[in-house]
Amino acid sequence: MNRVDGADDRYVVGVDYGTLSGRALVVRVGDGAELGTAVHEYGDSVISTALPGGRTLPPDWALQNPQDYRDVLRYAVPAAVAAAGVDPAAVVGIGIDFTACTVLPTLADGTPLCETPELRDRPHAWVKLWKHHAAQPHADRINALAHERAEPWIGRYGGKISAEWQYAKGLQMLEEDPEVYDRAERFIEAADWIVWQLCGTETRNVCTAGYKGILQDGHYPSKDFLTALNPNFGDFVAKLDGPLLPLGARAGALTAQAAAWTGLPEGIAVAVGNVDAHVTAASAQAVEPGRLVAIMGTSTCHVVNGAEVAEVAGMCGVVDGGISPGAWGYEAGQSGVGDIFGWFVEHAAPAGIDSHERLTELAASQPVGAHGLIALDWWNGNRSLLVNHDLSGLIVGMTLATRPQDIYRALLESTAYGTRMIIEAFVDAGVPVNDLVIAGGLTNNALLMQIYADVTKRPLNIIASAQGPALGSAIHAAVAAGEFPSIHEASRAMGRVHEAVYRPDPERARAYDALYAEYRSLHDHFGRGGNDVMLRLRAIRNAAVEAAATAHETPLEVVA
Amino acid sequence: MNRVDGADDRYVVGVDYGTLSGRALVVRVGDGAELGTAVHEYGDSVISTALPGGRTLPPDWALQNPQDYRDVLRYAVPAAVAAAGVDPAAVVGIGIDFTACTVLPTLADGTPLCETPELRDRPHAWVKLWKHHAAQPHADRINALAHERAEPWIGRYGGKISAEWQYAKGLQMLEEDPEVYDRAERFIEAADWIVWQLCGTETRNVCTAGYKGILQDGHYPSKDFLTALNPNFGDFVAKLDGPLLPLGARAGALTAQAAAWTGLPEGIAVAVGNVDAHVTAASAQAVEPGRLVAIMGTSTCHVVNGAEVAEVAGMCGVVDGGISPGAWGYEAGQSGVGDIFGWFVEHAAPAGIDSHERLTELAASQPVGAHGLIALDWWNGNRSLLVNHDLSGLIVGMTLATRPQDIYRALLESTAYGTRMIIEAFVDAGVPVNDLVIAGGLTNNALLMQIYADVTKRPLNIIASAQGPALGSAIHAAVAAGEFPSIHEASRAMGRVHEAVYRPDPERARAYDALYAEYRSLHDHFGRGGNDVMLRLRAIRNAAVEAAATAHETPLEVVA
Repeated sequence: MNRVDGADDRYVVGVDYGTLSGRALVVRVGDGAELGTAVHEYGDSVISTALPGGRTLPPDWALQNPQDYRDVLRYAVPAAVAAAGVDPAAVVGIGIDFTACTVLPTLADGTPLCETPELRDRPHAWVKLWKHHAAQPHADRINALAHERAEPWIGRYGGKISAEWQYAKGLQMLEEDPEVYDRAERFIEAADWIVWQLCGTETRNVCTAGYKGILQDGHYPSKDFLTALNPNFGDFVAKLDGPLLPLGARAGALTAQAAAWTGLPEGIAVAVGNVDAHVTAASAQAVEPGRLVAIMGTSTCHVVNGAEVAEVAGMCGVVDGGISPGAWGYEAGQSGVGDIFGWFVEHAAPAGIDSHERLTELAASQPVGAHGLIALDWWNGNRSLLVNHDLSGLIVGMTLATRPQDIYRALLESTAYGTRMIIEAFVDAGVPVNDLVIAGGLTNNALLMQIYADVTKRPLNIIASAQGPALGSAIHAAVAAGEFPSIHEASRAMGRVHEAVYRPDPERARAYDALYAEYRSLHDHFGRGGNDVMLRLRAIRNAAVEAAATAHETPLEVVA
Repeated sequence: MNRVDGADDRYVVGVDYGTLSGRALVVRVGDGAELGTAVHEYGDSVISTALPGGRTLPPDWALQNPQDYRDVLRYAVPAAVAAAGVDPAAVVGIGIDFTACTVLPTLADGTPLCETPELRDRPHAWVKLWKHHAAQPHADRINALAHERAEPWIGRYGGKISAEWQYAKGLQMLEEDPEVYDRAERFIEAADWIVWQLCGTETRNVCTAGYKGILQDGHYPSKDFLTALNPNFGDFVAKLDGPLLPLGARAGALTAQAAAWTGLPEGIAVAVGNVDAHVTAASAQAVEPGRLVAIMGTSTCHVVNGAEVAEVAGMCGVVDGGISPGAWGYEAGQSGVGDIFGWFVEHAAPAGIDSHERLTELAASQPVGAHGLIALDWWNGNRSLLVNHDLSGLIVGMTLATRPQDIYRALLESTAYGTRMIIEAFVDAGVPVNDLVIAGGLTNNALLMQIYADVTKRPLNIIASAQGPALGSAIHAAVAAGEFPSIHEASRAMGRVHEAVYRPDPERARAYDALYAEYRSLHDHFGRGGNDVMLRLRAIRNAAVEAAATAHETPLEVVA
């Protein structure tokens, strides 16, 4: 491990802003030791049914209150420092990561529009959380127009931008509440906004600007394109544009006010904002090209650096410096992973074996293929490579002899096959993937991890920190504070990974090849137009539920 | 109801031989009133692992002990008569039905070979129960050769004869134990054998001779064909052939010995043998063409009379007089129905809702299509129309919002779609199906019944007797005793059905049309060569399980 002279008595703070809470972590600069942590739950959590003032929201909305983000600074940071037992004066920098695309409209000075009294009751004035899904029609129009006009950037996003991203959310704001749109002098990622709160200076990080803001090769989408979407949308980029900084850069110095909130010294370095998944590459020692990080929780996010730019159909995006300066950062995702296993335990496992532990125990001893099942892991749609949230899950091979542990194992395997599809898409496009580093809550499941090694035929390294994102933010803070010359070197000194914990077994890997071929064939048949039954079933379901909710419901009346 | 003069003081006994027990039922001739019943469980049940003498059996064997069948006559018949409280002297006839093809080798006088001391220890000397499945290779050869030679009878069996039937079981006997084959002077259905025990005369009923013995247009398969299968198989028909009698005919008079067993008067009419499913047509008042009887239990058997002969791909068979004289009797089947629902409750329903009652209650209120699911009901393979026991179950459409009652309802519906496939195959081949009579244990599930009406778009009549087969046998006994001139008239007088208990709801039926189109498309894709993944998964499963059982097992060893 690289030591930095005298760095044993200097500390950095990483703050990880999640969906429901924020976590602060105090880390020693010299070796990345994690000394203390604290969590603050957001008071307003996810606002999905009604604004705090009472106004109800339409379906698929998801908002947040920016004051909750400030409160993480006020409560979690001092608590973490106290828990670490270090002298606050020894803290030399702070860095943050955030969910993305989580975005808000503000005045020119950074005041959130929802904090102006006259706009407090307007839904579009609030923070739109990443999982706000009400802008799908706007995303559809953006994608259609981009392909129609052969916009150069659309291939950088695997052919499709998401309804979660800045342009879809911005266009929805313009068209549903033009007044709020006009009052929004800035439209900014929460990651950048909280950095602004910390250092008093507006910056834009290249990560979210690239992945969520369609900044490619120094250009946002053209005014021409935006005007074609809506004549009044031409000025949207003006609300987004701002001082662009690379990851690991110093956005500014901690203000007196932020010092008062956090208890940290005024003037220390504030790192530019970042995204939870991407920042984990630093804590997982996975910033070199060819090492893919999979953050596996309810869903999985994959990030990997590549030396060259390539367009990979179905990936989330590729951004120059999107993970670390000097490399092209690639991102992909699986929209349902741990969520599917949780669904199974809660809704499909009989009494007595309805726990992950028991099911894993029963499933672990099976030879590969002995359950005779294949599943498509699309319970929550498919993010990569198919980019279709209306796809759904499938299981084939059930017999009267099928047992719950068989299906459970087939579900674990299906997500591994999904990961292998993504890896192969990268490799086929010229982006090497040599090994994997797994982070996130699912690293505890040894059976799952071994299945991933066997299915992907690659060694699995496991992140050694339980707080991957917060540690990554702390590493970025150390770089911003000048403790290391680059993220690469800071990652080597402060990141932690257990190397090659799981290695593929050649015999099992060979057996999985046959099953993966079946998965792939089903994947393409149901996901690429062979049979769009999933989309039709979704449409039938939605129509049936809506008809029942609105009008003359005809539930089944039994005559007998 | 047709009354027969003086028939109020005359009775008949029907005996239904099932897989595990035999049931006797005492019925009044005049109106079919069921007056008393009793059950006798077979002492040796199903012999599948070892002979009573200790000799172990290979996999897939299923034998029975013929003495158990005699014991039903000795115990269940007198008990039923006693329970009915009628004077045994007022009983005028006895009829039986049996599982089929359940078949045994005997001496010329009807003595089962397994009752000769020197052959008692020879598996092939015992009764082969219908579900003896060890003759599949022999059935495969018979089918291949029949198609190669374009045998005229193969189309009468939907293109495929079953491993359960007489020729496959006979060929297996010849090739595995030629001495037992040579000693077998007769090879006879248990249905005909028990009739022989009752009246002392060997007869063959046209139903099993046609469906299981390949008797078509007065001919069994040619000696030429049989010799081509095996040079020593040419005499097989000589072991089968016997006095052929139509259904409802009098096989003979009750012998003194059988009178002593049963307590019934010597000399009363003994009806020719029959099959449980087919005899139910009589008790369900469904002997007219166009009225299909579905006997729904763990599996479903469908029988329907037609005025004309037609070849229906995938049906089990069509036999002249196979249900009642003067019509062509068609048979089809679904190999998993109630078994699948039972599997779900036992192995896939979480605590608290793991009962048919609770799941039905939750599923019943859903609008059609609201669960967004389609299943293929092949947990136990597919008998009709695909005739492939290696097919397996499929569910598509799962999301994180899918609940157990959704899947349960989708499973109920999948079996209804399977029934509609069979009905449409009949109708397309020119065999009308105007309405359905449902018999069997599943008639109690009102939701299931209404789904069948909606999916098949036909009114559902429900048999009014809980003992459909035994009542049917009693009706045949009444015909054999000369109480009625035909099964048709006896059925009208003694059968019982609730007419049109469930009627299709036009709106739900329309909604089901769209879902059935999806089922049909998946059915053809996975069942007719579009993707043989189910067959490959089965082969992979069998190889994996076998490898683990026999040799160097490599279960997953977790490294961590």
